[in-house]
Amino acid sequence: MAQGSASGGITGKPLIESDRVEGSAVYDPSGKYIGSIKRLMIEKMSGRIVYTVVSFGGFVGLGEDQHTVPWSKLTYDNGLGGYRTDITEEQLLGAPIFYRADNYHWADREQERGLHDYWAAPYYWSV
Amino acid sequence: MAQGSASGGITGKPLIESDRVEGSAVYDPSGKYIGSIKRLMIEKMSGRIVYTVVSFGGFVGLGEDQHTVPWSKLTYDNGLGGYRTDITEEQLLGAPIFYRADNYHWADREQERGLHDYWAAPYYWSV
Repeated sequence: MAQGSASGGITGKPLIESDRVEGSAVYDPSGKYIGSIKRLMIEKMSGRIVYTVVSFGGFVGLGEDQHTVPWSKLTYDNGLGGYRTDITEEQLLGAPIFYRADNYHWADREQERGLHDYWAAPYYWSV
Repeated sequence: MAQGSASGGITGKPLIESDRVEGSAVYDPSGKYIGSIKRLMIEKMSGRIVYTVVSFGGFVGLGEDQHTVPWSKLTYDNGLGGYRTDITEEQLLGAPIFYRADNYHWADREQERGLHDYWAAPYYWSV
């Protein structure tokens, strides 16, 4: 994972509590609040966080909506005390519905590949 | 990480929600309930879970007490629907007090080394 990605940078503490990440604010590149983290999706075998479920409600043209996005799309910002992402309103509008569904089949690597391609994120299983 | 360690085995789903891990029961090797997971400690840079904070209350000789233990000490058991650990009552009684303190200095690798040595767990930064 690239330096600084969801990392809190080099100035922050190296560890963070899971229940502090849950509920953290998410901001767009300009620092505007666009949502908050609902939960983390953990790969059992490795103990790594691979996705976050984010509730987006800060865009004008969209209602409150939850999306699953790769963890690498979020970068911790010490100044804001939350996470930045470059995800756009347009991307959210176009996100395939199955990425949001409860019955999304997480074990299907092809579907995961599609999800990462859509968000232009590197595959977590190759890093 | 060894196969099956905190993994849910090969039969379970590969991913699990953070808020499902929090609150999960912890059992001793014989299947006796000894506590529950309070939270996870995440390494920001890598996005890996490295510790769990476990509230132990199921041993006869001990009161309710929270301890920070390496994630590798817990192994998911599909049958029990919770995590098994080989941590003993004797180990908990002897655990140095600073491992439980709020002001434990997580950035100090020497202290982390001591913690892992105490619990006989492999260092997470070498795997």
